[in-house]
Order: sequence, then C-alpha cells, then structure tokens
Amino acid sequence: MSAKHGLFIPGPTNVPESVRKAINIPMEDMRAPDLPDFTLPLFTDIKKVFMSQAGQVFLFPSSGTGGWEAAVTNTLSPGDKVLMARFGQFSHLWVDLCQRHGLDVEVLEVEWGKGVPVDEYARRLAADTAHKIKAVFVCQNETATGVTSDVAGVRAALDAANHPALLMVDGVSSIASIDFRMDEWGVDIAVSGSQKGFMLPAGLAILCVSPKALEATKTAKCHRCYFDFADMIRANKGGYFPYTPPTQLIRGLRVSVDMLLDEGLENVFARHNRLAEAVRRAVFAWGLKLCAKGPEWYSDTVSAVVVPENVDANAILRHAYHAYHLSLGAGLAQLNGRVFRIGHLGDLNETMVLSALGAVELVMRDLGVAFQPGSGVAAAVNYLSASRTGSGFAEAAE
Amino acid sequence: MSAKHGLFIPGPTNVPESVRKAINIPMEDMRAPDLPDFTLPLFTDIKKVFMSQAGQVFLFPSSGTGGWEAAVTNTLSPGDKVLMARFGQFSHLWVDLCQRHGLDVEVLEVEWGKGVPVDEYARRLAADTAHKIKAVFVCQNETATGVTSDVAGVRAALDAANHPALLMVDGVSSIASIDFRMDEWGVDIAVSGSQKGFMLPAGLAILCVSPKALEATKTAKCHRCYFDFADMIRANKGGYFPYTPPTQLIRGLRVSVDMLLDEGLENVFARHNRLAEAVRRAVFAWGLKLCAKGPEWYSDTVSAVVVPENVDANAILRHAYHAYHLSLGAGLAQLNGRVFRIGHLGDLNETMVLSALGAVELVMRDLGVAFQPGSGVAAAVNYLSASRTGSGFAEAAE
Amino acid sequence: MSAKHGLFIPGPTNVPESVRKAINIPMEDMRAPDLPDFTLPLFTDIKKVFMSQAGQVFLFPSSGTGGWEAAVTNTLSPGDKVLMARFGQFSHLWVDLCQRHGLDVEVLEVEWGKGVPVDEYARRLAADTAHKIKAVFVCQNETATGVTSDVAGVRAALDAANHPALLMVDGVSSIASIDFRMDEWGVDIAVSGSQKGFMLPAGLAILCVSPKALEATKTAKCHRCYFDFADMIRANKGGYFPYTPPTQLIRGLRVSVDMLLDEGLENVFARHNRLAEAVRRAVFAWGLKLCAKGPEWYSDTVSAVVVPENVDANAILRHAYHAYHLSLGAGLAQLNGRVFRIGHLGDLNETMVLSALGAVELVMRDLGVAFQPGSGVAAAVNYLSASRTGSGFAEAAE
Amino acid sequence: MSAKHGLFIPGPTNVPESVRKAINIPMEDMRAPDLPDFTLPLFTDIKKVFMSQAGQVFLFPSSGTGGWEAAVTNTLSPGDKVLMARFGQFSHLWVDLCQRHGLDVEVLEVEWGKGVPVDEYARRLAADTAHKIKAVFVCQNETATGVTSDVAGVRAALDAANHPALLMVDGVSSIASIDFRMDEWGVDIAVSGSQKGFMLPAGLAILCVSPKALEATKTAKCHRCYFDFADMIRANKGGYFPYTPPTQLIRGLRVSVDMLLDEGLENVFARHNRLAEAVRRAVFAWGLKLCAKGPEWYSDTVSAVVVPENVDANAILRHAYHAYHLSLGAGLAQLNGRVFRIGHLGDLNETMVLSALGAVELVMRDLGVAFQPGSGVAAAVNYLSASRTGSGFAEAAE
Repeated sequence: MSAKHGLFIPGPTNVPESVRKAINIPMEDMRAPDLPDFTLPLFTDIKKVFMSQAGQVFLFPSSGTGGWEAAVTNTLSPGDKVLMARFGQFSHLWVDLCQRHGLDVEVLEVEWGKGVPVDEYARRLAADTAHKIKAVFVCQNETATGVTSDVAGVRAALDAANHPALLMVDGVSSIASIDFRMDEWGVDIAVSGSQKGFMLPAGLAILCVSPKALEATKTAKCHRCYFDFADMIRANKGGYFPYTPPTQLIRGLRVSVDMLLDEGLENVFARHNRLAEAVRRAVFAWGLKLCAKGPEWYSDTVSAVVVPENVDANAILRHAYHAYHLSLGAGLAQLNGRVFRIGHLGDLNETMVLSALGAVELVMRDLGVAFQPGSGVAAAVNYLSASRTGSGFAEAAE
Repeated sequence: MSAKHGLFIPGPTNVPESVRKAINIPMEDMRAPDLPDFTLPLFTDIKKVFMSQAGQVFLFPSSGTGGWEAAVTNTLSPGDKVLMARFGQFSHLWVDLCQRHGLDVEVLEVEWGKGVPVDEYARRLAADTAHKIKAVFVCQNETATGVTSDVAGVRAALDAANHPALLMVDGVSSIASIDFRMDEWGVDIAVSGSQKGFMLPAGLAILCVSPKALEATKTAKCHRCYFDFADMIRANKGGYFPYTPPTQLIRGLRVSVDMLLDEGLENVFARHNRLAEAVRRAVFAWGLKLCAKGPEWYSDTVSAVVVPENVDANAILRHAYHAYHLSLGAGLAQLNGRVFRIGHLGDLNETMVLSALGAVELVMRDLGVAFQPGSGVAAAVNYLSASRTGSGFAEAAE
Repeated sequence: MSAKHGLFIPGPTNVPESVRKAINIPMEDMRAPDLPDFTLPLFTDIKKVFMSQAGQVFLFPSSGTGGWEAAVTNTLSPGDKVLMARFGQFSHLWVDLCQRHGLDVEVLEVEWGKGVPVDEYARRLAADTAHKIKAVFVCQNETATGVTSDVAGVRAALDAANHPALLMVDGVSSIASIDFRMDEWGVDIAVSGSQKGFMLPAGLAILCVSPKALEATKTAKCHRCYFDFADMIRANKGGYFPYTPPTQLIRGLRVSVDMLLDEGLENVFARHNRLAEAVRRAVFAWGLKLCAKGPEWYSDTVSAVVVPENVDANAILRHAYHAYHLSLGAGLAQLNGRVFRIGHLGDLNETMVLSALGAVELVMRDLGVAFQPGSGVAAAVNYLSASRTGSGFAEAAE
Repeated sequence: MSAKHGLFIPGPTNVPESVRKAINIPMEDMRAPDLPDFTLPLFTDIKKVFMSQAGQVFLFPSSGTGGWEAAVTNTLSPGDKVLMARFGQFSHLWVDLCQRHGLDVEVLEVEWGKGVPVDEYARRLAADTAHKIKAVFVCQNETATGVTSDVAGVRAALDAANHPALLMVDGVSSIASIDFRMDEWGVDIAVSGSQKGFMLPAGLAILCVSPKALEATKTAKCHRCYFDFADMIRANKGGYFPYTPPTQLIRGLRVSVDMLLDEGLENVFARHNRLAEAVRRAVFAWGLKLCAKGPEWYSDTVSAVVVPENVDANAILRHAYHAYHLSLGAGLAQLNGRVFRIGHLGDLNETMVLSALGAVELVMRDLGVAFQPGSGVAAAVNYLSASRTGSGFAEAAE
C-alpha cells in the first residue's frame, strides 16, 4: 500500500492536479518566438495577486531565501542601517542574511509567539529624524510560530514619522493566502515563493517591487549579479529571461494564478481564515495551546501547537509520519520538541482539514496524550457547519 | 481552489502514485519483441493474487461485466441450468446476463442485506442428483449492499453433494481486498476488475480460470469471439494478445500486483478489515445502521449506511460532492435514497478513512441529521488505536 | 539513456501531450451528479468526427474487435447471410468473428494488396433479389496491407440494387484520419477504436450507428449483454454508463475530439494524405514497393513496404527496435517476413515522418539492404516542400 | 494536431520519461525523517558523474548562472585578480559576473570559434610569480559557438608554473556529456546545471568543489548568504537543506544520475561524440561550415552552423519552429542571424538526430537555401552505420 500522504506542513503545499499537469511538460525553448505571448500577460496577472498595479514582478529561480537576497542586495548598500524584529526562525534568518550582506541591522528582540512590535517601530522611526534607517522589515507571517504581523500598522508608523525608509515584507507564507495589499499598504518589496500560497513546487522566488524600490537600485552598492533586478527587467521587457528559467514552474504559475484570481482573492483569504479557525477550535478542544500569544497574532496559514509538558512533539511528528503517512511541521530552533505545526494553506478544503485533525487525534491517542478523542473534530465540524450556514458558503455550487 | 477530491466509492478506487506513473506512458508496440519478457512473469504473478497455481489468468479489455460474460459464454451452452442468488444490484445483473445468454437460471431471491444462502444452495445441489445444474454462482461481495458471502461454504455444499457443477465467483469488489482462495476453495472462475482491489483505472477484466473450467470450454456452445478464452490462451502463451491490449493498464497492473505481493495478501486483507471496522464503529456511534443484516455479512470493502427515515440519502451524496469534494456511493435500485455507501478498499490508510468520516459528519451536521458530532471519529480513533496496539501494526516502520 | 521511442506502427499511435494530461487523472465517481454535463456534449461532438447527425454514438470499454462484436450481435441473428471480402488479416478476423456468431458469411477472396471488389459486390447484391443478404461489410482500411477501400462505391452498389442490407464499415484505422462520411455514404455501423486516429491509448471501441441499424436491433437474435446497444442507450441518455466506464479515456477523448474538430476534419485528412505521400515517395526512391497493388488502394494511414527477396523484414523490425528505439509494424500472417509497415497516422507531423524515414535508412544500411542512403529522405523533403508551397500549409502559423 | 515538438537546443534537453515520472510527484516534507536515506547516497553518486572522490557536491536552487555566483563568492574576495578568456556569450557572461562581484578580471579576448588559449594562459601564469592570480577560469564548452576547451591543458599550465590559483570550470553544457575529470584534472570548482547533461528541467545548479576550494572559503570576503557553501554543508551533512529545496528535481536527479552511471560515463561520452560527429558530417555535406574554427574545438554537445551570406539564420529558426515544431538554438550576440545551433546532448539517440537533420533539410529547402536534399542525412546515415559496425555498438542489445 502506498496510500496518499497527508501533507500538512506550512509549505511546500499540495499542488493541485491542474497545476501538476501544467508543470509536467516536455522541456521547451526558453527563447521560442512565441514565449512572450505567454510570459507578458502572466507578469501582469501575478501583480494582481500582490494587489499591485504600480509594482514590477520578478521571478527568480531560487527559494524564498533567494528572494530575500534579491530584495536586500538590489536596494541597499553595505553599512546601511535597517530596522528588523526577530521573533521566530524565519525573521531570525532574514536578520542573518542582512548582516552577512554588510547591513547595519537594528534588531528588536521579541518574544516568540508575538510579531512585529508596531509601537516600538513607530518610536524608532520617529526618533530617526536623520533618516539613517534605510529600510524597515516585516515578516508578515512567521512560519515557525504561526504569527501574523500587522504590515499596514508599520506603514502607518512610517507615514506618521514621515519616514522615507523602504518597507520590505517577507510574505513567503502569507501572500496568496492572507490579506496582503502591496499598493494600498505602500509596500516596497514583497517577497514570496512558489511553494506556499502559489501552490507550486519549490523553485521560484516571486517578488513584487515598487517604483520607489526600483529607484533605489540605482544607488544600491551591494554586489549582485544572479539576483540583479536590472538584468531581469531588461530581459523580461521582451518576455524573456536573462538565463534559463524553470519554464515548467512558470507554466504552472499561469494555472495557479488563474485559480487564485478565479476564486477571488477575498474568497481565498476567507477560506484560509475559516479553515484556520476550524483548526484552532480543534486545538483548544483538545485542551492544547497555540504558540501564538493571542488572537491578534493568529496565523491563517499555520498553527504551531504547543504540546503538554510531558510530551515530545517530535515523537508526534515521527509517529504521524511513519504510522499514518501524515506530515506535520516540526518545531524549529527553540521550539523544537515543544510544538508541532499544522500547515493549513494553499489548495485546501474542509475534508482535507478534517483528515489532518482526525489523524492528529489518532496519533495523540496512540501516544497516550491526554485529550478527549473526537473533541477536536467535533469542534471543527461544528464551527465549519455554523460558519458555512452564516456565510452562505458553497450554496452556489449546488 | 481545486482541492483534492475524496474518493470513497466502492470503485474505481484511488490509484496509487506509483501506479499512476506506470500508466502514464507513451504508447508502445503491443508486438514488440521484448514484450513477452514483461507479460509472461506478470501472468504468473497475477495468479498469486488469486491464490492459484493451477489456474489460467485472463486480461480482457472490458469492465467487470465483460469478465462475467467471458466466464459464462466460454463454459456454458444455451439452455444450461445454473444456480444463482439475487440480493443486490450486482447479483441481479449477473442473473440478467446469464438469462440473456440463454441460460436457464434458477434464482434464489434473498433479502437485500443478506448474501448467498449456503444452506439452500446445499439443498438444491443435493437434490440435483441428475446434475442438471452446470454451474453455481456466488457474488462474493455484493457492492450494492455491502454484503460478503461465504464462498468456501458453497464449495463445501458442492463437495457434500459430490456435485460437478462449476463454481463461478464474482470477486470484482472483493479480490485483492478480502480473503479469496481460488485453489483452496475450488473456485472454477473468479472474475475481478482493474478498478477495485487492483487499484487501477477501469478497463480490464481480470479472470482466473481453473483447468476444469478450461475443459468445459470445449463443449460450451455459447457464441463468443471477443471474449474467447482459446484465442487469448493461444496469444498469451507467447506473451502477446489477440488484439490491441491496453498496454498502459497492463504496465500499471505490474506495479499494483507488486504492491499487493510486497504488502502480503494476509496483510492486505487485515488492513481492509481493520479500516472497515473503524468505519462500522463510526456508523454505529452515529446511531445509524448498516444495510448488511448482521456481522456475518459485513463487507470489508464497502459499507452501505442506512439513513434515518426522514433523511434523503441522495441529499447527503449531493451535498458531500458539491460542498466538500467528497464522493460517496449512491444507493442503487431499491436502496436509492435509503442508503449512502462508503467505499473503503484499495490504496487506503487510517488518515484517509478519518477524512471520510470527518467529512460525513460535517455533511450530516449541515443537513440537520441527528447525531453527536465527533462521535464517529472518536469511535474510529479509539478502535484504530486499540487495534493497532494489539496487532503491533506499523511498529516495524518506526 | 532512455531516449524517446519512435512509434511508427499503425496504432496505437502517439498520444498528444494534451491528451496524456487529460488521461492522467485521479479516479472519479462514474455516478457523479455533474458527469452528464461532460458526457452529453461529448457524445454529440464525437458524431461530428463520423460526419453524422442522425447516428448514435457508442463507447464500449474494449478493443476495436469488441466494436465489431457489438456491431454484429446487436443487428443480426444466427443464420443471417452477410457479404464480406477478405484481403488481409483484419478483414479475415472480421469474417471469423461473424462465423463464430453463427452468421452465414459469403466471403469474397481477394488478392492481398487490393481491397473490396466493388463490382463484384454490386453483382452479388443485384443478384440477391430476395434480399437474403442482411448486411454488407467493408473494411475501409486494411491495416495489414495498407489498402483503402471504396466505401462510397459500396453504398452506390447497394443503392443501384435498391438493396436494404445494412452497410457495416470497419473504420478502426481510417476514421479520424481518412475521409469518412457516415451520413452521406449511408453507413449503418462504423466501428472505430481509441488507439488510432483518436490518438488515445487502447481501451475504447467507438461506434456510430444509424437509425436503421438501431431499428434492426429489435429483431436481432444474437445473444448479447456486455455489448448490448439498448442498455447503453438507456444509460447514455442520462449521461451515464451501464457499467464502470474508463473515465480516464473518456476525459482524454474530449481533448482528442476537440483537437480533431479544431484542426478541421478536411485538414486532418489532407495532413494524413500529404505525410503518407511523403512516405510513399521515400519508399519508391529506395527502390522498394508497397504491398498495395496500385494508387487506388494506397492507404494514408499505413504503408506496408515489401522488402527485397533476399531480405528478412523481421530482421529490419528487430534491428530498428533494439538498435534505434524505433517501432515499425510487422508483416502479419502471410506477409510475415515479407513486409514491414510504417504507420503514419494520428498526431504526426513532417519532423516525425522524417525521423522514421531517416531511421529506416540507417537500419537498411546497417543490414546491407541495397539502396541509396539519403534518397528516401530527399524524395520526402522535396515532396513535402513542394506540396507545402502549393497548398499554403503552415503559412498561417507564421 | 499537437505533434511532438523536436527539441534540439543546447539545453534544456529532452527529459527522459523515467525522469519525468520521478519529478511528477506530490509535494513532500523537506524535513521528513527519512529524507536523509535518500539524499546522502545521492550526494555520493553525483560526485561520480564529476569523476570526483575528494570533492563536495552542492545543489543550489538556481540556474547555472547561480552556480557561477556560488563558485565565485564563496572562494574569492573583492579585488582578487582572476584570469579568464572570452570567446562567446557564456564566457562573456562569466567575466561580467566576476566584475560585478568586484574581482579584478584579466580578460583574454579570443576570436569566437576558438576556445581557451592554453599557451597564453601558461605564459600569464608563469609570469605571475607573485601569485596575484587567485583563480583561473575555463569555460569547458562555450554553448554559443559550439567550442570545447582543453581543461586538462590548463591544469598542466598551472602545474608547469607551480601556480596555486584555483581552477574554476564552467561545465554547464559539458558535464555528463563530454569527458570531464574533476580529480584527475585538479579542478577546484566545476559548475553544472540540471537542464543539460543531467537531463532535468532547469532549476538546479550542481557544483563539485575541491577541498582546496573549500579551504579558500574561509578567507573569501565576497558577501554571500543564499549561495553560501558553509550553510549548505552544515545542513547537507544531515541529509537536509538550509532552505526549501526543489525536492521534485532532486528526486529526478536520482534517476538521471542512475541512468548516467548505468550507461557508464565513457559510453555516455562516446555516444555524444558519435551523434555529434553525425551532425557535423551532415553540416559539411550540406556545404555549410561550423562556427568552431577547427576539429580541436568541435563540441560534442552543440554545433553552431554558419549559414550562407545571403541567408538569415533567424528565418530558419522561426520557420523550423512554426512550420515543423522544431526548436533549434539561436545565434547569440554577435552571432545572431549568422548561425543556428543544433543541440545534441542529453537523452538522445540516432533516430532523434536524424529527425533533426531531416527537418533542417526541409526547412532549408522551403527557404531556398542551396544544398542537395538528402545529402546531410546520407552523410549521417553512412557515418552512423560505419561507426556502429566498428564499435560494436548496440550488438549486445540484440
């Protein structure tokens, strides 16, 4: 028996059949005469997912980390001061990346389980009357802790201080899943990746860059070549790429962008919120807690579940994987062994969420974790049914 | 969002990824010089799934119904008397097929929810001292009602009467899932299909035929050509086929047979039994009944669930399909609207079963069916966990 | 190295990528509530490929041979007299099938390399004033010899004799590739299969049946069940099937039918003719002959090439297969060892034809067959280029 | 008609069916407990393709250009002097990359059509007694001109001068196709990519790095993070990656590495040489010239064909693409319009090469290019047949 593997990590996410088909193609010539007929409209449509008209989209063959590197090296110079907060493994890694590229990073240490301290950002920005801070960073969704931060709040802080710093957003595990508004929020660079809300395999960093950030590239002195915006712009203008692109992923991206726009971004966000809330209800019904310190931090793409003191979260992960073909997310760094994470983003519906919850119940039952079997599923079913009735969800389909 | 469709009908079943890969191939020459290197060992290994050494395997490009037609027309003649029982849509269809081919069918009408009346078969066979009855038919698993019959019991009845009639078994929804022993039980023709326990798409009837049944082909006068055993034997002997075979399915069959033999048939049967029992526990916890009239009839591949008087089973089916991407089996013929069926066969594990149970709970909750949310999943989780510990299941994997 | 296999047999043909994608799907419920939205329009569009409005389409899970059996058993009765010609392996097999179903077959033996003797058919029909002949059979394209027969001529013969016999056409290797006009030619049953012009894997017999033939089913006494038209009509009317259909092939059929209709049947026929003529020019340039005895018999889907006396055609086949990953068609029955066949039908273009011709040259060179290397390709290139200019082919695409 | 596209560009190359299958998988957890069982042996086996035991393999999610960036930034510091030769678009781009990262590049300009000037390298190295030159670069196969350079010769020059500079090789379009010996030739960093000899889609840079180069990372001051060797080594040691890897490509790499090792690298090289020579014979028979200035420069993976003065090479490319579904490589930079390129690397056999040659003949015939139709195919057939007999090729298979 090979039985389907249940994938409930916070990315890579489940690739829809239609995207799998679009990716599974014979190789093609990346210089074919009709390629621009395909790429140029795609560039335009990707911007819609970022809710941007003014921005420029970039597709780099890399992971999301490469997208961060592109953002930093194209717009900043060694020695530049930047403002960041660290409250989980991914915000930590972004700090590290900036430091390695020679930036002078002002790091705000925040308790894991909370997100960007908007008030403190506001204070620092207001205090920086000399505009030494060249960029402010927001990890919109800290994947390690299941915490969502307030990007619009940071924008408001910048505006209140009348501060010209660039606003950089790590949206790898939020964009195309959680509300994100590039233009409205005045984001300068948003970094995402193919393997989360875009429902593709890993391999593409997807960025949207504001005109202001593009202007900054002219003076940015960080060394760069592979991730250079200018080369990419020059080639993309004609519908091509400066080096061999992963055309298979780009063909798939056409389909996933169509899926997102067809469903409607507002509906995509609402669906993620509803399924996430069902997971949270289940977690609380089991008597467990989230790593996120309060509802204002709850992430709609991933829930980090804190296990009881006497339980090893890694045992849950291993047992789920080996015994029940279920992949849950591990606790990272200081959370290792203390949490397991349930990814609930991408191509997901109620049935799939209930399978994860049911299987987690089985895993916990096997391992002797104290909880009431059925309680989580009951809470989720009740919530899903109630929220469905209220919202008129799915009625149209019948 | 396209989200995975949950397929919980009693066939076609979920095709494992490895089988999907094996099927998804460029076309090939069915007369290629090295094809026999592939087909001849396959024929041998398929027999192992039937637990037969003496038998001859046949692969006809057709549905299971075609397999029935092959069984009947190759071994019987118009006017021949045969003994059958009718207790569901599929046993009914087989009766109908025999009648259309001119057989004289002695039909025992049995309440739907029960299976082959072994005692009555025994009586009739004992009474048939002139051996007018040329063949006795057993539908091992009536897919419409979720009822499994006792093939070995019928064999015993034949032996007790020292009766030479052929023993024909419809194993379409049982073989490779539920215990079946061709040689040990003295079955003369077993009919299966690709789309159930063999975990392939529909398109192949798979038969195993005893030497005694092959002998009977010599005098059988039913007209036949497409389904003729003799043509097939002649071509198969060299590793080829008398007409264009669906090579893609046969390539896939190689993989699914390997999967079955690698898991071990006893383990396959035990897995089906355990997952089926989890479903039954859930059904009973919901306060519902099975169509099967007692544990002796319970099928390990499909459960037909009787809905309360005031509920329309078809509304459950439609809602599951449209709202939650879940396919359940419809009630057929006289059961339409009265039952929904949960298929639990093929490439299936605990997580998948729990997804079906959770989703059915959500559907029933939405439609106002009276039951305790979470109760079914709780019963299944408890059973699965308890049975796992007892049996040492999956420990080896860790 | 696994290197693509060149498939130049007269079916199964190369499955286009888009069809492969359409086929490679998770299994689905053949009783899903929305299946008819898919099947009903498909039935209508398939008829267009047969150039029929009046006909009824049937899709049987079987090979083309099963399609023949359906045609015969649904419309005729044992003892019925039918008129057939035998001039190759496939016309031979159809004769055999009719005989096994108890028909009284009047067989006209024709030299292999020629086709249906229309004049002799006319004579027999005119002489049959008692209308003993219930059906007249035409193998439109004899795949074994590469010979195309004159279906319209046989219609004319029937009309001239004012004869009511049914006109049955084996179009397995012609329909969707070579001009065929169901209604215009008054064909009563046309039999095709998925694996030739329809560019799908094997597994579906595709029939189109006239109202007159459907009327004949009412009195036809051949036993039938699996291939029964009436059961299929009843289920198809609602968009369903009487037993589990190979939904994956039917999903693929949607795509291949779209491809055929998008290209336009006239263009499909013209393309086959042009590519076939290129192959013939190459064969003649090599100094070889076709099995077909004259241009009036040349098939546009397959060329049977006669090898020189001192050459073993099977050695060519084996060497092509083992050394160069090229599948050519074997000589069947009396032609075995005397011919090799080049299939040139389905999803084919100039580049693919030239690959086959180049590879055949290499094979013949390796085996010491006397011919001028390059001569065949030169003849094909010259013809393809000249015919392209003349016809304006492909200009539109640029 | 969708008809297969003929892909004869110098990468991406044709992905074998078995690799396509290995890639086309549901997403998986890159932190799964059993992933190291898969990755660790793979790392070892990839080294065999580089013919290295001492080296360390790196897989970066990027194009080959990213691989160059990794090589440069991990081992060198801004201001470091390096020795390079420029003789085509790709050697040019590498120069450019080094300059952007602040290196002091000593560029030897070489006529396009020739390769690395080993003698001049030797002179410069001998003259550099102060060992200012920190690295010497060799583009083993200049994809733009179809020119192969002498890596072993450069090694000899380094040794003769007893020079400690690192030897960096761009093997993107040579490794796994053309003889390359990491350890024997004392190469310090070899850069390749997934989409050429490794027969995968684009998306992975594949590097092999010597202990000496790893040592150099300790003092290298180029800023780096995404492409940092140290992070990768740390994670790879346990079988994981520092960020989300494109697991689908890595699964495919397992299969392509197996294919290469199963065929045997010597056989892979010999096959490429033989097929390349067939192409060259055809080009010369057409009366055309290669861009490469002499046999010592001929590339076995790509031939850049110079068109006659009065012909526009781009017209050939466009016509091949639109009319015959054939992708040839464009002339890049100064060669644009002057050459078309035939890629002959990766998963390729004789039949495929003959299809390209036949189709190019047809294209040239259509466009009125003066040549003898059939001449190229004849030359190729004659060579392939003659070289086959001599080498005993393929006999084993029969």
